Amino acid sequence: MSTFDIIAFDADDTLWHSERYYAQTQSEFVKLLAHYRGEEYIRAHLDEVEARNIQHFGYGVKGFALSMIESAVELTDGRVSGHDIKAIIALAKDMLNADIELLNGVSETVAQLAARHRLMVITKGDLLDQEKKLQRSGLGKYFQRVEIVSDKTRESYERLLAEHSIEPSRFFMVGNSLRSDILPIIELGGSAAYIPYEITWQHETAEPPTGQPGFHQLEHIGQLPALLAKLEEA
Amino acid sequence: MSTFDIIAFDADDTLWHSERYYAQTQSEFVKLLAHYRGEEYIRAHLDEVEARNIQHFGYGVKGFALSMIESAVELTDGRVSGHDIKAIIALAKDMLNADIELLNGVSETVAQLAARHRLMVITKGDLLDQEKKLQRSGLGKYFQRVEIVSDKTRESYERLLAEHSIEPSRFFMVGNSLRSDILPIIELGGSAAYIPYEITWQHETAEPPTGQPGFHQLEHIGQLPALLAKLEEA
Repeated sequence: MSTFDIIAFDADDTLWHSERYYAQTQSEFVKLLAHYRGEEYIRAHLDEVEARNIQHFGYGVKGFALSMIESAVELTDGRVSGHDIKAIIALAKDMLNADIELLNGVSETVAQLAARHRLMVITKGDLLDQEKKLQRSGLGKYFQRVEIVSDKTRESYERLLAEHSIEPSRFFMVGNSLRSDILPIIELGGSAAYIPYEITWQHETAEPPTGQPGFHQLEHIGQLPALLAKLEEA
Repeated sequence: MSTFDIIAFDADDTLWHSERYYAQTQSEFVKLLAHYRGEEYIRAHLDEVEARNIQHFGYGVKGFALSMIESAVELTDGRVSGHDIKAIIALAKDMLNADIELLNGVSETVAQLAARHRLMVITKGDLLDQEKKLQRSGLGKYFQRVEIVSDKTRESYERLLAEHSIEPSRFFMVGNSLRSDILPIIELGGSAAYIPYEITWQHETAEPPTGQPGFHQLEHIGQLPALLAKLEEA
């Protein structure tokens, strides 16, 4: 019998690249407004608008697009052109339709784990966007459950585990965000593997709970099967 | 034993008013652009932009806001002012923060049914927005499950019923949209009560499946307990 009933994965920047599309889009946004303001000012303003709009729009590309538009109007004192606004909407559509690039090792690791474990995806973001990404990723068949949630807090995980009748101690989460994927699970008494991604969105930074029971840090998803095998032997 | 394992409700315009906020916002949008184009032209253009953007944005206020902005740029040949773009974003935020107005009879009926049945909400739209509306509605405690879905098709209901191990024949759905709430359920062999709302969004119109097994039409949600009681006796 397995030690864990469910191995759950975050999706963006755990299974496939996401933050790099946000970073690319932000660079395009900076270019678009470069004749109004300096790069640093533009980036700081967009971050600020995004942060204050999370309460209204939640996570995902659509809210990010609305924040870019709001930021563009403010940064230009209302002088932004209709053409530039359309360009921002086009950037958002490009993000929604971008190819899915899996992280190295994901497809082998997920296939390998699916043979031994029940797998699940738990991700934030826009509903349709995340569903379509999972579909395009070709990984859909490996996951028995897909949960797209508006936030990843201790409370939201608690609710989700209760709905699926999963004991926290038998739950293992894998993700790249300490704040969203790791800390709430450790707090609930579950286990989690933190696999840092090359870029961390500043809203997601936190201190790793090094040494706490259930906490594991990996450099690469390919190390996950060996970690799980070791935990099951223990 | 009850004839139905689950009574599921659509939310927008079944439990609470929604379409009227879209209608109000559209009227504000028309006013905002009135010095560029005639009302009819503006409305038709916005509808067209919305329809072509559903594939990118899905349902909900955020996608509607992006479509209004795109439509505003096109309708004005790029001359729309930054001020008007901000006004459109403000309209979207107003929609997201609007008070929840329950339809007449909803709060008594839902409370009454919750005492005898397991209730569920199945709704389209933006994740965070629908969660917050359910919370503000005060009805959350009556529903054992809340499913926010990207689309309501035969396939999506099939998946959902399988996930919850519900037999279609023991599933009863209540909603105001023939296309989204009623026809897929009747096709699957379930039962459904169609309760038309005062306004039907044109994307949701369809012919009622009058006379088909499992199909019921009510004028008012207050008639639902009597219908269910009758069906359970039969």
